[in-house]
Amino acid sequence: MTEPRSVPEPGALVVGVGGSLAGRTSGYEKRLGDMGGVYRDQAAYEALLAELGGDHVVYRVEEHRCAEGPGALTIGTSTLLPGRVGEEFAVTRGHLHAVPDRAELYHCLSGHGLLLLETLDGRSEAYELAPGRAVHVPGHWVHRSVNTGDEPLVTLFCYNTDAGQDYGLIERAGGMKSLVVADGDGWTLRPNPDHRGYPVEVVA
Amino acid sequence: MTEPRSVPEPGALVVGVGGSLAGRTSGYEKRLGDMGGVYRDQAAYEALLAELGGDHVVYRVEEHRCAEGPGALTIGTSTLLPGRVGEEFAVTRGHLHAVPDRAELYHCLSGHGLLLLETLDGRSEAYELAPGRAVHVPGHWVHRSVNTGDEPLVTLFCYNTDAGQDYGLIERAGGMKSLVVADGDGWTLRPNPDHRGYPVEVVA
Repeated sequence: MTEPRSVPEPGALVVGVGGSLAGRTSGYEKRLGDMGGVYRDQAAYEALLAELGGDHVVYRVEEHRCAEGPGALTIGTSTLLPGRVGEEFAVTRGHLHAVPDRAELYHCLSGHGLLLLETLDGRSEAYELAPGRAVHVPGHWVHRSVNTGDEPLVTLFCYNTDAGQDYGLIERAGGMKSLVVADGDGWTLRPNPDHRGYPVEVVA
Repeated sequence: MTEPRSVPEPGALVVGVGGSLAGRTSGYEKRLGDMGGVYRDQAAYEALLAELGGDHVVYRVEEHRCAEGPGALTIGTSTLLPGRVGEEFAVTRGHLHAVPDRAELYHCLSGHGLLLLETLDGRSEAYELAPGRAVHVPGHWVHRSVNTGDEPLVTLFCYNTDAGQDYGLIERAGGMKSLVVADGDGWTLRPNPDHRGYPVEVVA
């Protein structure tokens, strides 16, 4: 019996609260050496690089895709290891979707942290991530995960595959508008003096 | 300060494994009286209706939407109560997306059951739902949840808001191709003799 080419195979997945994703179709790891320019404190970053090496894994993504086209989803897990670079807590690079109106779900499975969300016209918001908490990120919001805890921050995510990611936007803006920094035993938001604003022409 | 109209507000959600969704924007309940024609055993359905009443809740959906348009998502929880109608286990009505290429995520938070998936050209598959198991349903698959356990079956779902739902397709086909029926202490799939095939012209 021939398989109809237009009907993709469903995916049976097993999602571990530690970030495993049995049934995944792809994945990648980000290493400390990939994070140059992400943190403000260049000296602290260089010191950590010397201590842990550029191959040290800082976060990993597992994902499942089964189709292409406008209706297709990418479903996966993100595991952001805990740590600090100078005063700043560990972050993912962060992105705006290349197709900016595309939304995304982040559902926290374990760990503690924040989803930092910023609009191109200057709003900055932090949403708590803890087991059971989820954030519905609409289109047009730049977003990044931040691990403010002592254990891996694991989220289940879901977004339209055709959304894509613009990872360069934050770098071109001099970083996100807000930094998440240590404050006693907790965290606080501090304005990033290097932030130059996002290029508003991207809004379309 | 005026809010830019083009940027929707994010949603901060708290997802309970029992199906609660703090931060929801809408929701609905399906009652036993809404399920006429869904189960094969009409006498068993009528008897249950007489016993429990038409207002008896059989499943509920909580959801969050924050935008319209092609990139918008609907995120929510589905809670399907346990039960049987004759030999058949409790089911949701089931649907194909009105825009048939739209995909959907179901991530089981509690309970035990199946996601029953069928293509318009005659494939029928059952995927296990149990805590931590997820199913990535690509476009073009008719799908329905089935509770084969003794407690509520709770799933987190995520799909494109513009997908819509065709709830009439299954009824027009005489029911889904497979029935999920009791088999000792467990369940088994049995061909539905009333199933006439799906109208293939819907494929597009």
